[in-house]
Amino acid sequence: MMNKMNSVAMQNGQLHVKQIDIPTPSAGQVLVKSLACGICGSDIHITRHTADVFDIYKNLGTMEQEASNEQEVLLGHEYAAEIVSYGPETKKELAIGTRVTSVPILLSAGGAGVGVTPGLYGAYSEYFIVDEALLLPIPDAVPSEAAAITEPLAVGLHAVNRAQINTDDAAIVVGCGPIGLAAIAALKLQGVKHIIASDPQESKKQIALEFGATEYVNPMADDEVARATALAGSNKVVIFECAGVSRLLNDYILRAPAKAKIVVTGVHTAPLNVNFAYATVKELDLIFSYYYQPEEFAESLENIASGKIAWQKMRTGKVGIDGVQGAFDTLFKPNDHIKIIIEPWRAGALERVTN
Amino acid sequence: MMNKMNSVAMQNGQLHVKQIDIPTPSAGQVLVKSLACGICGSDIHITRHTADVFDIYKNLGTMEQEASNEQEVLLGHEYAAEIVSYGPETKKELAIGTRVTSVPILLSAGGAGVGVTPGLYGAYSEYFIVDEALLLPIPDAVPSEAAAITEPLAVGLHAVNRAQINTDDAAIVVGCGPIGLAAIAALKLQGVKHIIASDPQESKKQIALEFGATEYVNPMADDEVARATALAGSNKVVIFECAGVSRLLNDYILRAPAKAKIVVTGVHTAPLNVNFAYATVKELDLIFSYYYQPEEFAESLENIASGKIAWQKMRTGKVGIDGVQGAFDTLFKPNDHIKIIIEPWRAGALERVTN
Repeated sequence: MMNKMNSVAMQNGQLHVKQIDIPTPSAGQVLVKSLACGICGSDIHITRHTADVFDIYKNLGTMEQEASNEQEVLLGHEYAAEIVSYGPETKKELAIGTRVTSVPILLSAGGAGVGVTPGLYGAYSEYFIVDEALLLPIPDAVPSEAAAITEPLAVGLHAVNRAQINTDDAAIVVGCGPIGLAAIAALKLQGVKHIIASDPQESKKQIALEFGATEYVNPMADDEVARATALAGSNKVVIFECAGVSRLLNDYILRAPAKAKIVVTGVHTAPLNVNFAYATVKELDLIFSYYYQPEEFAESLENIASGKIAWQKMRTGKVGIDGVQGAFDTLFKPNDHIKIIIEPWRAGALERVTN
Repeated sequence: MMNKMNSVAMQNGQLHVKQIDIPTPSAGQVLVKSLACGICGSDIHITRHTADVFDIYKNLGTMEQEASNEQEVLLGHEYAAEIVSYGPETKKELAIGTRVTSVPILLSAGGAGVGVTPGLYGAYSEYFIVDEALLLPIPDAVPSEAAAITEPLAVGLHAVNRAQINTDDAAIVVGCGPIGLAAIAALKLQGVKHIIASDPQESKKQIALEFGATEYVNPMADDEVARATALAGSNKVVIFECAGVSRLLNDYILRAPAKAKIVVTGVHTAPLNVNFAYATVKELDLIFSYYYQPEEFAESLENIASGKIAWQKMRTGKVGIDGVQGAFDTLFKPNDHIKIIIEPWRAGALERVTN
């Protein structure tokens, strides 16, 4: 094995391929080869607003590095990988070459996030480091690009679990990107009767319905909140904000019916001017959902393996390691991609995948 | 009976006693004589910020009147009263002269709030109107001034019920006014093990402990959040914002530990600049609590009757109808009152009550 690898580094709002040393796994760690890695909305956000994002973590005391746009990050936290070698103090229960995924945190690095933390390796790179204790083998029938979608599915499932929704409640899923579709799928699997997919892109209607939405509303044309309120009757309206658009929070606080729950996914780093009186008078719950439990991650992988989730419909593009900046350029602008999968082991520009 | 009565009208930030006609009960309604009425923090707020408060209700479509400081309101929604006469279409199950209280809404006026709605009568007046369907007789052993405290106790109880707190969680009650004390009492009755009373007025320590707080923290001197986090261990911290200070919401969103719940009571009409990223990364729940269920109101009256709540400690002042503006002047400034009870049937300036 060579000592050098290609890595994708994010810095100053740009991505570039750089050659770096292949890392060496420490105690409890495993060196893996990245087979497939999804581009996450948060990867786009952190690339555009590095200092803002890190400022949040610094203020919370969970990050020591300087909150600067010059901070370099090796991105990639939605991955399928292959075991290359084990570090010391490992059990080595899985054979070299086994395909694996994991919750993207390094317990062995204080619980820091893989692919989002300066100084750690990410799955946009050819090789990276994970914890042995968190490894989940990928079932043979699950392609690597499917396993890479486990992570956003877990985010959506967790948001639904956080909501403690009843099957008679009416859900609105705002934004039919990967997290919104994952939430729709989770709501469907939990038996929720009314699942309204809301997205201004009419092109999302078909996939939203395929994932389990019971109806689609274009919020530019119709009132999705009024529709959900009518469907809910005496039950609750539960709004899942999966668009990552801060001002929508105010919009839904103002428009939600009494007793509604608003589940917020994604990190809104821009301060928002909010009048909480509307939330109070209507007795809203604002439920913030960010991560997931390991059980939810494993359940999401199982849902892919058992064919419960049409992951193929989510994957709209594939790209090699030298095409990542081009893919980001596409995603920075209005586009109709849902999930682009990076294959860091090969070269190649962004190509559309249809199913 | 004379046709005229004394009433306390709020307009342009001031209160004045005015003579108006004694109202006539309509179908389903009852004319009652006000025996005792608490001054609520929201009465102070609406007097100072009438247009702001009504603007909220107008925007929500629940109020038709103009949102102006010139809007006149006959205040008073925390009351004990005596049945004077029944309107048409009433069952008259309670004798004339029976002491009663009720949830302060008029179903017969579209669910509008008694004592907060322009055009309705309030319990600061000598007489006012309630719905027969909502009447609760006051047990003989309960003084009228105690029964008038039922309403804030219900607000605190409801906030605690909204929180769905576990007995092993650690509660922080921020602000030891009537709502905070009511929340402390409800937490104690529910068996919550750790109840931290937080109030910068050290004079509140004694009553907070008497109401059931397990400890008192002066937040100007010590870190109440760190203390609660230590007590909670692997359980949740639940913060009850009962101080009515908007900026505290941001403070607790920033300082709360992961997975904490923040229960917001009271209407914060001033817009607040909020960075929700902190709430997201820590997966907080923001739970807005405003009203209460009729069952919670009845339970609060029972808690007074059975001696479970030391209501006497809450009542710090009494005043006659001509002293209400003077009492408000006292409450507008920093003061150590908890609950001032108006007795609209008599004259007299604010006097301190000690127990």
